[in-house]
Amino acid sequence: MKTKYVYAFEAGDGKNKKLLGGKGANLCEMTQIGLRVPPGFVITTDACLAYLNSPTNDLPQGLMDEVMEHIRALEKATGKGFGDPENPLLVSVRSGSALSMPGMMDTILNLGLNQDTIHGLIKQTGNERFAYDAYRRFIQLFAKVAIGIPDDYFNASLDAIKVKSGAISDIDLTTSDLQEITDLFLHVVEEQALRSFPQDVYEQLTIAIKAVFGSWMGKRAVDYRREFRITPDMANGTACNIVAMVFGNMGSDSGTGVGFTRDPATGENLMFGEYLVNAQGEDVVAGIRTPKPIQAMAKEMPDLYAQLEDLRQKLERHYREVQDFEFTIEKGVLYCLQTRNGKMNATAMVRTSVEMESEGLLTKDEALARINPENMEQLLYPGLDPSYDAKPLATGLPASPGAASGKCVFDADRAESLGSAGEKVILVREETKPDDIHGFFASQGILTSRGGKTSHAAVVARGMGKPCVAGAEGIHVDTLHRLAQVGDRVVHEGDVITIDGATGNVYLGAIPTVEPEWSAELDILLQWADDTARLGVRANADTPEDAERSRKYGATGIGLCRTERMFNAPDRLPIVVDMILAQDKEQREEALARLLPIQRADFVGIFKAMSPYPVTIRLLDPPIHEFLPLESELLVQLDDLRELRDTVRTASRLLDTVRFVDPALHEKYAAGIAKLPINLERLDTETVEKVLAKRELMLQRARTLREVNPMLGHRGVRLGLSYPEIYGMQIMAILEATAECLKQGVEVHPEIMVPQVGIAKELEAVKTLVDTIALEVEASHKVKLDCKYGTMIEVVRACVLAGEIAEIAEFFSFGTNDLTQATFSFSREDAENKFLPFYQETGILDTNPFESLDTKGVGGLMRLGVTEGRKTKPDLKIGICGEHGGHPASINFCHEVGLDYVSCSGPRVPIARLAAAHAVLKERASITDKSL
Amino acid sequence: MKTKYVYAFEAGDGKNKKLLGGKGANLCEMTQIGLRVPPGFVITTDACLAYLNSPTNDLPQGLMDEVMEHIRALEKATGKGFGDPENPLLVSVRSGSALSMPGMMDTILNLGLNQDTIHGLIKQTGNERFAYDAYRRFIQLFAKVAIGIPDDYFNASLDAIKVKSGAISDIDLTTSDLQEITDLFLHVVEEQALRSFPQDVYEQLTIAIKAVFGSWMGKRAVDYRREFRITPDMANGTACNIVAMVFGNMGSDSGTGVGFTRDPATGENLMFGEYLVNAQGEDVVAGIRTPKPIQAMAKEMPDLYAQLEDLRQKLERHYREVQDFEFTIEKGVLYCLQTRNGKMNATAMVRTSVEMESEGLLTKDEALARINPENMEQLLYPGLDPSYDAKPLATGLPASPGAASGKCVFDADRAESLGSAGEKVILVREETKPDDIHGFFASQGILTSRGGKTSHAAVVARGMGKPCVAGAEGIHVDTLHRLAQVGDRVVHEGDVITIDGATGNVYLGAIPTVEPEWSAELDILLQWADDTARLGVRANADTPEDAERSRKYGATGIGLCRTERMFNAPDRLPIVVDMILAQDKEQREEALARLLPIQRADFVGIFKAMSPYPVTIRLLDPPIHEFLPLESELLVQLDDLRELRDTVRTASRLLDTVRFVDPALHEKYAAGIAKLPINLERLDTETVEKVLAKRELMLQRARTLREVNPMLGHRGVRLGLSYPEIYGMQIMAILEATAECLKQGVEVHPEIMVPQVGIAKELEAVKTLVDTIALEVEASHKVKLDCKYGTMIEVVRACVLAGEIAEIAEFFSFGTNDLTQATFSFSREDAENKFLPFYQETGILDTNPFESLDTKGVGGLMRLGVTEGRKTKPDLKIGICGEHGGHPASINFCHEVGLDYVSCSGPRVPIARLAAAHAVLKERASITDKSL
Repeated sequence: MKTKYVYAFEAGDGKNKKLLGGKGANLCEMTQIGLRVPPGFVITTDACLAYLNSPTNDLPQGLMDEVMEHIRALEKATGKGFGDPENPLLVSVRSGSALSMPGMMDTILNLGLNQDTIHGLIKQTGNERFAYDAYRRFIQLFAKVAIGIPDDYFNASLDAIKVKSGAISDIDLTTSDLQEITDLFLHVVEEQALRSFPQDVYEQLTIAIKAVFGSWMGKRAVDYRREFRITPDMANGTACNIVAMVFGNMGSDSGTGVGFTRDPATGENLMFGEYLVNAQGEDVVAGIRTPKPIQAMAKEMPDLYAQLEDLRQKLERHYREVQDFEFTIEKGVLYCLQTRNGKMNATAMVRTSVEMESEGLLTKDEALARINPENMEQLLYPGLDPSYDAKPLATGLPASPGAASGKCVFDADRAESLGSAGEKVILVREETKPDDIHGFFASQGILTSRGGKTSHAAVVARGMGKPCVAGAEGIHVDTLHRLAQVGDRVVHEGDVITIDGATGNVYLGAIPTVEPEWSAELDILLQWADDTARLGVRANADTPEDAERSRKYGATGIGLCRTERMFNAPDRLPIVVDMILAQDKEQREEALARLLPIQRADFVGIFKAMSPYPVTIRLLDPPIHEFLPLESELLVQLDDLRELRDTVRTASRLLDTVRFVDPALHEKYAAGIAKLPINLERLDTETVEKVLAKRELMLQRARTLREVNPMLGHRGVRLGLSYPEIYGMQIMAILEATAECLKQGVEVHPEIMVPQVGIAKELEAVKTLVDTIALEVEASHKVKLDCKYGTMIEVVRACVLAGEIAEIAEFFSFGTNDLTQATFSFSREDAENKFLPFYQETGILDTNPFESLDTKGVGGLMRLGVTEGRKTKPDLKIGICGEHGGHPASINFCHEVGLDYVSCSGPRVPIARLAAAHAVLKERASITDKSL
Repeated sequence: MKTKYVYAFEAGDGKNKKLLGGKGANLCEMTQIGLRVPPGFVITTDACLAYLNSPTNDLPQGLMDEVMEHIRALEKATGKGFGDPENPLLVSVRSGSALSMPGMMDTILNLGLNQDTIHGLIKQTGNERFAYDAYRRFIQLFAKVAIGIPDDYFNASLDAIKVKSGAISDIDLTTSDLQEITDLFLHVVEEQALRSFPQDVYEQLTIAIKAVFGSWMGKRAVDYRREFRITPDMANGTACNIVAMVFGNMGSDSGTGVGFTRDPATGENLMFGEYLVNAQGEDVVAGIRTPKPIQAMAKEMPDLYAQLEDLRQKLERHYREVQDFEFTIEKGVLYCLQTRNGKMNATAMVRTSVEMESEGLLTKDEALARINPENMEQLLYPGLDPSYDAKPLATGLPASPGAASGKCVFDADRAESLGSAGEKVILVREETKPDDIHGFFASQGILTSRGGKTSHAAVVARGMGKPCVAGAEGIHVDTLHRLAQVGDRVVHEGDVITIDGATGNVYLGAIPTVEPEWSAELDILLQWADDTARLGVRANADTPEDAERSRKYGATGIGLCRTERMFNAPDRLPIVVDMILAQDKEQREEALARLLPIQRADFVGIFKAMSPYPVTIRLLDPPIHEFLPLESELLVQLDDLRELRDTVRTASRLLDTVRFVDPALHEKYAAGIAKLPINLERLDTETVEKVLAKRELMLQRARTLREVNPMLGHRGVRLGLSYPEIYGMQIMAILEATAECLKQGVEVHPEIMVPQVGIAKELEAVKTLVDTIALEVEASHKVKLDCKYGTMIEVVRACVLAGEIAEIAEFFSFGTNDLTQATFSFSREDAENKFLPFYQETGILDTNPFESLDTKGVGGLMRLGVTEGRKTKPDLKIGICGEHGGHPASINFCHEVGLDYVSCSGPRVPIARLAAAHAVLKERASITDKSL
């Protein structure tokens, strides 16, 4: 049987993109669902491949016969004649492969024009200038694409005429200029190609088809396919679409426009778009005339508007997705030239999902599936007003999303004093430490010049839901002089800046921000997500406020409550420092006894805010030296204090001497000294000496506690076992808080979680402590406690030996931040500053494994942990509380691997809820695929 | 059938320790192989259990009948009568369970003595004093063990008599004193027990048997079993041995002694031991008489000596192991009381193994199996003379074995200058850095006050085979004043100290050391080991000297050649620093070009030293900031340099002024200045400024390169890919050296190994570099290179994705040092200084995983790596080059898991060879076990 190479749009299979190309299939589909599309036909990719394989460079036998047959059908459909000088049929010849490769292959417009048909076109359009403009463009394009004459030759001629006629741009060219250009162009072709421009329209067509096919192997296309790894099984050869030209510039009953079936900014179910009467699409592009909003058409061309409305309905009913379409009206006839899925912002996506479901256009699954969870971030954080155009002063890492403006302040105390006075401030530091924490509370956002996405600033800001730009290395922070330098610009304290945590940009001045809106539709959609998802979604929350906020986002429990955050609060840090400076266990226990009631109250607050959902509390994790100031800071403080001591000494001695010698002068001096910033009454030498001694002790302790690799150091359970009184205090606080809530009738489900466990005996040792204290609390409070006991799985060894560990643990929670560091042997802070960007640029890693879970490596260990853990305890509850818990692709993996829940920062909870639903949809699809 | 509870030594099954206890079984065995053992019998552990379970506290029915029957046999065998006042049979009643529990259960001697038989004993021995001494001891022991009267009561009586007779110690007591004591003791019993001391010998025996059985449940025994986790399936109940007493003090034809069947110090095949004529064992213990060497017996008692020689032969032929035995001669009859395997030093073990094999006593396998590889260390390193008694000044970690004495020096330059002058020096530092390396070469050993077993000092010293004590925290090193403080003692530069790398002890003064001996027997033994082993043994060696030395130890290849060691040598470090300070790639390449010929020469040397065996070369691994001095040191240097600059400036200015004003004075000044340590001609301001600028750049670079967790930082392949010119230079040096050797007819098998790989693409990227350079070198040198390409497996992810990595790697080498750190999330330096000792004390870890491979965790990952790697490439060559490669238990695991070779530091190669053979023997034994 002879191969069929050509399909009319009425006949081609709209699903067969491989054979017809994307554009061809789309045109077939539109035609067949009853949309008026300019008539035409497709030559298949098979024909292309046959041509490319032909050793003699011939189109396959019989192809041109088929084409001519279809041209005759086109003539019939349009009432025009191909090559007819009176009423010529013009066509476009367009490439189109199975995958979109924008601009990589060739297209020729207005084919069919020659010295005769040009007159027919003038007659058809009544627009001589347009006709010659179309003709000269056709000649250039055809010559370039089909004959290979570079644009330069034509541009030289064009420029010559422009000079001659004094035209500045193409728009200034007159009809006769264009006529002259046409002649010149024909001459260029003759000179360069050593042949005259083909006047025979079939010859034009044959050459054009070959050129389009040939462009598949053009350098651009080949490079593109290599770059984007498009293999022959994905797309092989281009189809060639021959489409009758339609013109929107044929009078006041003609026009052109673009439309969305719904408003892409709000999602409102109304046609959205703009149009121009008596114009071609290129007029819109050239910006000569301003298009009108599409609603105006209802008055101006009511019939056509009705047709357009009809088109909108048909498109949505067929594609079941908001469409972005192009149309042309030729003499009162509406043609749809192209349609594709409309790009919308997140608000519109959510609204249309919910409304299209209620309209019966989408199922709930489809309504969920069409929304990319990652795009929802714009619904949850304030962003910069996109209409405002500003140049960033500097750029750092986008460390915590959201945008904020405020006055620069360079230390936490100043942030607090200004902040409590009602000023909006941005805390700017080289890097932050736990003792800056009160500054975080008082600030709108945080900017640092050092550190990565896991730096103290970044993690704390994310937890608080405040914007943060970290590691903006271009900024030199000079705390001493209270200024920051960016190149040769200086920003002083009090100058207003704006930071954008979504991009990492830092701006001078206040840039308007747009607040997020939590719509009723979003609630509906997320409810559907929850109904679909198998994974639960919890929040990482360290305070009652965090807990309340995360409930609003839909969290059903706390997956990670970090107790060290409580240690960092300004009222506790001094006690924690006392604990660290303790000379023996008694002193340490004394400090811990002061912390106990504070921690207990924290837990009561969190339990109440989260009741009746479970709350997982992680015992102290970081190495304790993190609670001390940096050694370098202590050195500076010591220098200052010593100077202060000397000043105080000298001043006191001087004053005493003077008092003795000359009481009058003494009074004068005393008055002067009273004006000094140092209060001599208060700051006597003794006090200064005491402070000095404490700082010296802190320095000494900081040096003793210093570690070569703190990430792998004396922390987590290793610390907890060395100083059991610390964990003892925390466990006591948790269990007493539980007892207190129970007595108040509040339902609580505490889960005690031990960090950094790699050896089953570590977990066993802490369990002894928990059991002992639980008995004690039950006896003293006369309640029955129900507290689960489990562990973080963040040490590689814990994955390998999960079976042993599950004998003791009632639950696991994967800490994929640390697990990723250990699996790759990457210190995150060092990696992100030093080699990770390079690894991503060079493709050694596709993604940053700290953002997107490395499913092969880290995921392989997680899979092992889940399997081994559940072998021991089939109903072992397993979650994840690393940052990956809020990352959609990683959530999908967590679903696949059989976790029970993910836990993430509050604002990412909605994203996680949707991603959890997506995981189920994906799983169902793959099951369906397999069953086919 | 009635249970049989009693076995004569002639009848008991010598292998059934469970039933007869260890001692009982041993006595049966000795008896049955024809040794003369004092006659006796065993009451089984079953009898013990039956007694302990009896609610009425009775011995099982019929037991005493059986016992009496055996007593009658004893009477017959000895010609004495139990309770016979003329010629009494005395017995010992001894406990003995399946497992040795020394001192935990009770034993009674001389049972059978009473007011009548004491006279018979006097008659038998002709020694009244001895008889009463035996009697009073028997009364006290029996009363304590069987009746429960504390020693205190008896001691009070004893002391009273001593005071009365003026005796200072027991030896001073006269016969009549002892007689009086005996009477007093009998009185004590009567008073305390409210009954008289049992005079009936069968009553004595019954009570004694019950007491021995009862001691199984005594507090001491129960605690001991709990402590050492002895469960009932290991030992349940004690047997009770009734043995006729024999006496060595019955005249000049009697005696006692101990012997070894071969010399335990040298292994020489000669009887070794000592004896006393007419004495009991306790005389030896009491130290009253000095025993004679056993050879003296040949003259003194030739007949008995012949019997002893016969005993020696019988023991060795039966036990096929050197025996440590006790004997007593009673009236010319030699009794063997006990025998057990002799404890020997390593030299003797090796010699006896080889000789006993040639004598046909042992098979080669047995000869190998009886030597503990770990004990061989004493054969390989010098040790402190064990006869020298000294108190350590301080103690640190035993970081590199061997012992050495020398003068303290506090910096590497001084070590070099003294060392090259022929002085023996010990380099003492707070911690060492690469720029101390010339000091290592010049020193006998290294002592540091900070850092663990993996510190720079430890690792470098081990590699060089020099002793090192690291992290001796009690020592405060004061480099500035050239002294060290230990408590209030001060050690000045030049004072002689001795360090012992086997114990970590540091001594003041020179302590004699003992040099190791490499015997012919050791060579034979290791040859057998090689014939048996499946694992190959390679050495870690970084220099041609290392390579040569390790060949002497029997290495068949280099498993790890660390190229960074070459960078550290004094002639290269300045070039490496230039490379680090380079402002751009060109400058860096310029520095590398200077390093290239040096590295190439290194490799030529190593290849030649190791030909024809393979040499695995690891490309640069540590982060480059390790090649810069510490920031704190740079700060001090900068301060010094700035001061120097100011001095030079002032001096120059002054000199110039004076020259102008008063030439004569100028000359005088100039002469004075010439005497200063600063050479003003050479050290002009400009030079100082230049040095200063370079140091400033170094500081700046050190700060830029600083990392939070250097262990997980910018190092290994991550560094190699960021600066491909560094790896490029190294690869070029390796391949050019290969080509050079080939042209000289030297057989070389280089293997290029990439460190820190966790991602297959990392390995792929470096391979491109290797392939390109190989083509280049092959073309320019006109040779065909055969170079293998592989990777360290030291990143967890590499284990998980070993299948992917094996697609590129031709070999794997496990780097278990880093792998252990990553698997546990333990930074070794921090862990060993902070919490690992505590973990081992509390039993959370049984061993230090950095010394003994964690077979469950790290081993689990290795197993995964081997399995996945060989799935991809079944013939993948796999080794290990971490420190575990020299640790016997870890080597056994490497064998089990199917590695091809282990690689360890040169001096551990013999240990590894033996351990590799042991692994095979163990495997065979377990296969045999299974087949049974």
